[in-house]
Amino acid sequence: MKILFIGDVTGKPGLLFVKDRLPQLISEFHPDLVIANAENSAVNGRGITASSVEYLYDCGVEILTLGNHVWDQREALGVIQADERIVRPANLPPGVPGRGYTVCRVAGRSVAIISLIGRTFMGLADCPFRAIDQIFSQLDPAIKHIFIDFHGEATSEKLALGFYVDGRASVVVGTHTHVQTADERILPKGTGYLTDVGMTGPRDGILGMKREVVIRRFLDQMPARFEVADGPRQFSAVLAVLDDQGSARSMERIYIAE
Amino acid sequence: MKILFIGDVTGKPGLLFVKDRLPQLISEFHPDLVIANAENSAVNGRGITASSVEYLYDCGVEILTLGNHVWDQREALGVIQADERIVRPANLPPGVPGRGYTVCRVAGRSVAIISLIGRTFMGLADCPFRAIDQIFSQLDPAIKHIFIDFHGEATSEKLALGFYVDGRASVVVGTHTHVQTADERILPKGTGYLTDVGMTGPRDGILGMKREVVIRRFLDQMPARFEVADGPRQFSAVLAVLDDQGSARSMERIYIAE
Amino acid sequence: MKILFIGDVTGKPGLLFVKDRLPQLISEFHPDLVIANAENSAVNGRGITASSVEYLYDCGVEILTLGNHVWDQREALGVIQADERIVRPANLPPGVPGRGYTVCRVAGRSVAIISLIGRTFMGLADCPFRAIDQIFSQLDPAIKHIFIDFHGEATSEKLALGFYVDGRASVVVGTHTHVQTADERILPKGTGYLTDVGMTGPRDGILGMKREVVIRRFLDQMPARFEVADGPRQFSAVLAVLDDQGSARSMERIYIAE
Amino acid sequence: MKILFIGDVTGKPGLLFVKDRLPQLISEFHPDLVIANAENSAVNGRGITASSVEYLYDCGVEILTLGNHVWDQREALGVIQADERIVRPANLPPGVPGRGYTVCRVAGRSVAIISLIGRTFMGLADCPFRAIDQIFSQLDPAIKHIFIDFHGEATSEKLALGFYVDGRASVVVGTHTHVQTADERILPKGTGYLTDVGMTGPRDGILGMKREVVIRRFLDQMPARFEVADGPRQFSAVLAVLDDQGSARSMERIYIAE
Ligand SMILES: [Fe+2]
Ligand SMILES: [Fe+2]
Ligand SMILES: [Fe+2]
Ligand SMILES: [Fe+2]
Ligand SMILES: [Fe+2]
Ligand SMILES: [Fe+2]
Ligand SMILES: [Fe+2]
Ligand SMILES: [Fe+2]
Repeated sequence: MKILFIGDVTGKPGLLFVKDRLPQLISEFHPDLVIANAENSAVNGRGITASSVEYLYDCGVEILTLGNHVWDQREALGVIQADERIVRPANLPPGVPGRGYTVCRVAGRSVAIISLIGRTFMGLADCPFRAIDQIFSQLDPAIKHIFIDFHGEATSEKLALGFYVDGRASVVVGTHTHVQTADERILPKGTGYLTDVGMTGPRDGILGMKREVVIRRFLDQMPARFEVADGPRQFSAVLAVLDDQGSARSMERIYIAE
Repeated sequence: MKILFIGDVTGKPGLLFVKDRLPQLISEFHPDLVIANAENSAVNGRGITASSVEYLYDCGVEILTLGNHVWDQREALGVIQADERIVRPANLPPGVPGRGYTVCRVAGRSVAIISLIGRTFMGLADCPFRAIDQIFSQLDPAIKHIFIDFHGEATSEKLALGFYVDGRASVVVGTHTHVQTADERILPKGTGYLTDVGMTGPRDGILGMKREVVIRRFLDQMPARFEVADGPRQFSAVLAVLDDQGSARSMERIYIAE
Repeated sequence: MKILFIGDVTGKPGLLFVKDRLPQLISEFHPDLVIANAENSAVNGRGITASSVEYLYDCGVEILTLGNHVWDQREALGVIQADERIVRPANLPPGVPGRGYTVCRVAGRSVAIISLIGRTFMGLADCPFRAIDQIFSQLDPAIKHIFIDFHGEATSEKLALGFYVDGRASVVVGTHTHVQTADERILPKGTGYLTDVGMTGPRDGILGMKREVVIRRFLDQMPARFEVADGPRQFSAVLAVLDDQGSARSMERIYIAE
Repeated sequence: MKILFIGDVTGKPGLLFVKDRLPQLISEFHPDLVIANAENSAVNGRGITASSVEYLYDCGVEILTLGNHVWDQREALGVIQADERIVRPANLPPGVPGRGYTVCRVAGRSVAIISLIGRTFMGLADCPFRAIDQIFSQLDPAIKHIFIDFHGEATSEKLALGFYVDGRASVVVGTHTHVQTADERILPKGTGYLTDVGMTGPRDGILGMKREVVIRRFLDQMPARFEVADGPRQFSAVLAVLDDQGSARSMERIYIAE
């Protein structure tokens, strides 16, 4: 089974570049499942909207994951609650809208897609390690293909979670830092791992936002209105190839810059 | 001019692997200058010692940069104060031992090597943006070749600093996260950039430390004695090629895994 | 029922001052129960030791609460595990040694003493709000007298917890900042509240530690060996008077300075 | 000389309660100077507006200090820049609008009023310790009466700054936590000190905001629109009496609850 995962699609440029490049990637790699982290897919780069979600589906994305921007848009609550193709971090407090994982049928098999969020240098959340244990205990044991998007800041927390589920999950990829890391690997017990997939959107901004504004803010520490950057774009993704037992056979980074 | 920069050399395994692999890299690339971030080069992975520094010089490293672990070892103070080949973050409070940059002669040219530390998700430090402006104002304007190791956690801060000095510095590389990023590039005005060079040391630990201990700590939040991991090692570096005007012509990531 | 609670007893000076002043407070107020936060009662101000605990019992303290320094001393693990008079924060990860609350008989009634720790500006812990709900669901409903030490940094989190349990707990007092607040009150539904009880120990240090060292550290950001301060001491406590239904009738701050 | 300082005036209830109670406090204490921290005086509790500032002047306040909410209102920039009676934290980055201290004539003497902001558990700022040293070096040495509002979260940082300027400043009071502390004192060399003056505004909210919203946010970690609370109000202030040499003779906490 081949899973193509696209890193944080950011703003209108991100959406347009997914539309521009995803078809040829699909033609080239024939993924069985296409997932994207959509937490920045609203036009202003903050959260999701009904239309950003629809746009990604129209491009060929089938499952969406989220992150710390989950509640940025008011309309997101309804969307997240209603749509089983969207997963928000599973380790948010109990009772919040939406689901932390979803199971879908792909090429005749069940695949679980799980979203988790980190706690180091981030907001308050429940322990992601215990959250994933709980999900494993809930999942149908027949499900062998398990994909985790761990949305986190600290490399240590991401690596720790990767090793923690090694042999139990098929793939752990990180998102959130918007910079692709170069450490794709298959962990000792067969889990495919990449610390961060990186961001899909404007290439010459800072994390997708206009760089002049971000730099000025670092200098004067005054409030700033971050806006999605213009200009050339980048596509950040990873292709995971899994065997029938759910172990990763390969992890291939994809980075396309205009 | 070719500069080879080696990312956070960690513990005894890191030192040994530098000795093992640096000679062939020197033979292959003929760098004019070899720099290493040594902040984890003490045998226990915390700070520097007189002997870790000497060991790196013996391996062929010529200049050492540091980071948040700068004062971890008591003996480091004397070493840092006495040795002009060692630079600690320039934006530490004024009056602390050591220097924030150094200038050396390389292939008939003066090269400035600067260490800076980030503030986002890190300890308290002075503003790195103003610190670099101040250093630029102090440097001999004839110096065109300027290398910056920006030791930081947040990708946004590292990218912002890169763009901030674009056209004024030859190279900005990040260190500290111990995971190599895949975003090497030459910024619009000629500065070579890489968000993080990654770590040189044990490959199957977490940031170089034994992974069982790190994972247990995430689970139980109890004190843990982190120890440098055993097993196969990795070498993380970057080769920057600069033209006579100090602009980057190329930035090539190097990653060698046993 | 009268409960006397003593704020963070710090180092040897704290222990000695408890011995010096507790007897007269007991004579004066005739508390039915004496509780102390012991998280800094080790001679060096970090955590507890078998002897700091015994010393406090000998002084007349009957129940001990803890905080973020819970595991600072290696010997603390055994002590905490074995002694039912010691409670550590209930919202630490499940499975760690010790208990988050204890029930004792006081003046013919059962009293529950609960320790919780905050998350804002502190280490990672489970949600204290859900933790207290869970404890309420476990406690014998016949227990009306419930005392909570909420060890936290942020005033907002402490006030929020106070209001959250208003009418369900008898008393919520805060600890950890080592500075007594002046906001003792009875919340609308009858819970006695004080944001921070303050510290018992050296009065002219900073949070009990030698002030020169703390100030120097703020200036140079270098490692420092904090030592318990000498000189005159202070005793910080609160006397809560509860009615038979477990509601607070009065909350009286106690502050004695040498 | 008597200085009356009013803690964080919060929202419309805060403004109204200052108008309600300040006159009688002035009648009772005859302060020579009335200062208020206005960082929450806008109707919504965030920052200042031209009208919140005018309102406070009309009530009898003569000098205003600020804090982390300094830039919350767009119109604040012009107000802060134009009005010499307003001081914002002196240790913000150089070049931002406004002034970090002001000098005014009171009872035939010059008085300096200084605003500083902390860095521990707060946003990025310059070192407040070095900032105050720099201000001391700029002030006319003939000025003996120096009042500092140190807007900070951590008790350690506030105490450290108090001791750091002991004998050099007349008064150091803390603001920001919105809870009055009970540790008013005169430090060994004569500086009047109080860790936090507390908040002036709604008494039954959390830091002045509606408590249901704040509690819900702690529970579900979802975005919430904080609104200034209704109901009874509190007035938090401190009266500092200084001798002719600028040393504090007394520090008296004032707390009035409806
Ligand atoms: Fe994110
Ligand atoms: Fe993102
Ligand atoms: Fe580091
Ligand atoms: Fe490092
Ligand atoms: Fe504590
Ligand atoms: Fe404490
Ligand atoms: Fe504030
Ligand atoms: Fe405030």
